[in-house]
Amino acid sequence: MKEIETIKEFGGYLNRYTHESSSCQCEMTFSVYLPPQSRDDKVPTLYWLSGLTCTDDNARTKAGAQRYAAEHGIAIVFPDTSPRGEQVADEPERYDLGQGAGFYVNATRSPWSVHYQMYDYVINELPALVEANLPLLPGVKSVSGHSMGGHGALICALKNPDMFRSVSAFAPIVNPINCGWGKGCFGLYLGDDESAWQAYDATCLVNNGAKVRDILIDQGEADEFLHEGQLLPENFNAACEAQGQSCTIRRQPGYDHSYHFIASFIGEHFEFHAKYLKA
Amino acid sequence: MKEIETIKEFGGYLNRYTHESSSCQCEMTFSVYLPPQSRDDKVPTLYWLSGLTCTDDNARTKAGAQRYAAEHGIAIVFPDTSPRGEQVADEPERYDLGQGAGFYVNATRSPWSVHYQMYDYVINELPALVEANLPLLPGVKSVSGHSMGGHGALICALKNPDMFRSVSAFAPIVNPINCGWGKGCFGLYLGDDESAWQAYDATCLVNNGAKVRDILIDQGEADEFLHEGQLLPENFNAACEAQGQSCTIRRQPGYDHSYHFIASFIGEHFEFHAKYLKA
Repeated sequence: MKEIETIKEFGGYLNRYTHESSSCQCEMTFSVYLPPQSRDDKVPTLYWLSGLTCTDDNARTKAGAQRYAAEHGIAIVFPDTSPRGEQVADEPERYDLGQGAGFYVNATRSPWSVHYQMYDYVINELPALVEANLPLLPGVKSVSGHSMGGHGALICALKNPDMFRSVSAFAPIVNPINCGWGKGCFGLYLGDDESAWQAYDATCLVNNGAKVRDILIDQGEADEFLHEGQLLPENFNAACEAQGQSCTIRRQPGYDHSYHFIASFIGEHFEFHAKYLKA
Repeated sequence: MKEIETIKEFGGYLNRYTHESSSCQCEMTFSVYLPPQSRDDKVPTLYWLSGLTCTDDNARTKAGAQRYAAEHGIAIVFPDTSPRGEQVADEPERYDLGQGAGFYVNATRSPWSVHYQMYDYVINELPALVEANLPLLPGVKSVSGHSMGGHGALICALKNPDMFRSVSAFAPIVNPINCGWGKGCFGLYLGDDESAWQAYDATCLVNNGAKVRDILIDQGEADEFLHEGQLLPENFNAACEAQGQSCTIRRQPGYDHSYHFIASFIGEHFEFHAKYLKA
């Protein structure tokens, strides 16, 4: 991995790297915030998965997370949301398919399957890379994300209950097989067999018996995509109640889908993750 | 003024407005963060002046200021950095002249003088407008800003010592008549008489006897524009020492000119201003 930028922030460093990804078969860019505590000791890591249209830059610029990372001594890894490049399949007319919209799945259908292996990338390749090269405690990690990235965080944790110590999400797409965004790309990425879709659907995973220690979700009640039926937290809540999965879904009156909503509550998510990462 | 957007954040509201400006003779856009305390009582106000190329949006998205505003019960007003519109003179090839680069002066030279009256706009028109329409304590205000906006904050306070309770700045252009950015536009905005330039130069104002209660400045030592000689804090420091002006200039090792630098220290600027705004 090659460092292409380093910016001092809250006493630590916000770095950007590129590397040749074996999972995605293209050059990938990601950012890492290393808190001041990482000068002397290896630190735990929070993986932050961003939403549709984002790169690694949006959350690091707008979410206000670095302040809390510095306070708690937790690193943040910000992956990109899809493979990138001229050789990578895309659908430039759509913001919810192709580049910027990887949905954290391993695509199985042409042309997407060549590069769109974001699930493997975020759970295997990227952690191995950063743990080998940066002062991060191996295996001490949690995951969070927003919208499509909240979906990513939940499926990564539910499919690998021993890999992440805790999981949280902001306005996640919790039941993609039943919403427009998911239906609009899961068939193209994964083919027509709906059982393949269910393997990347947090509500289906819980209904099928997946279990993690605890889940924290914040959902704005003025979120336009909630009202469009893209997010469906009620379906996830019903699955968690039916299966006895511990999950706190906080309905936040008046909040929308933006980074201003994330910024308002990300400090509490850091407290939630710190409890498990530093136990 | 017309509200064109409202976003809930940290329990308060980040609103955006447009209005017909009599100073700038065009439609102007600005944002205001109203902290939760403003629901019940009028609150003090911090005016935030942004730097070159910015609109009202940059700081509200990237500086991380709203958290502290909510904690302290202080509103933030984010003006634009210049007049805007097709009818407004511009120099599209330059980022440091014309739209996005008003330098908070009242231009006297054609074609700039028609619309570029940002000094009057930020010290008179905008405060009168927001105090008449929003739950803000009349006249209880402080000012801060970044780079060109740090220059703006300093000249607004130094030229009007009774108008602002306190002033601070991040990486301000403190001696524009002696740097490339200032020389490149003051002549065009203000004409060839250098005494007109000195009236908008913080270092000259202090040397000429202007005095305010206290000044806080943060300056990153890895700031590329510091090394280019655009900022010249040593000149301002010398003027303050010669004139007995209380001023704390903190050199922050390793920090650059970006919003990540601002985010790292804006909480301490809120503490500084709160001391005076809530006295």
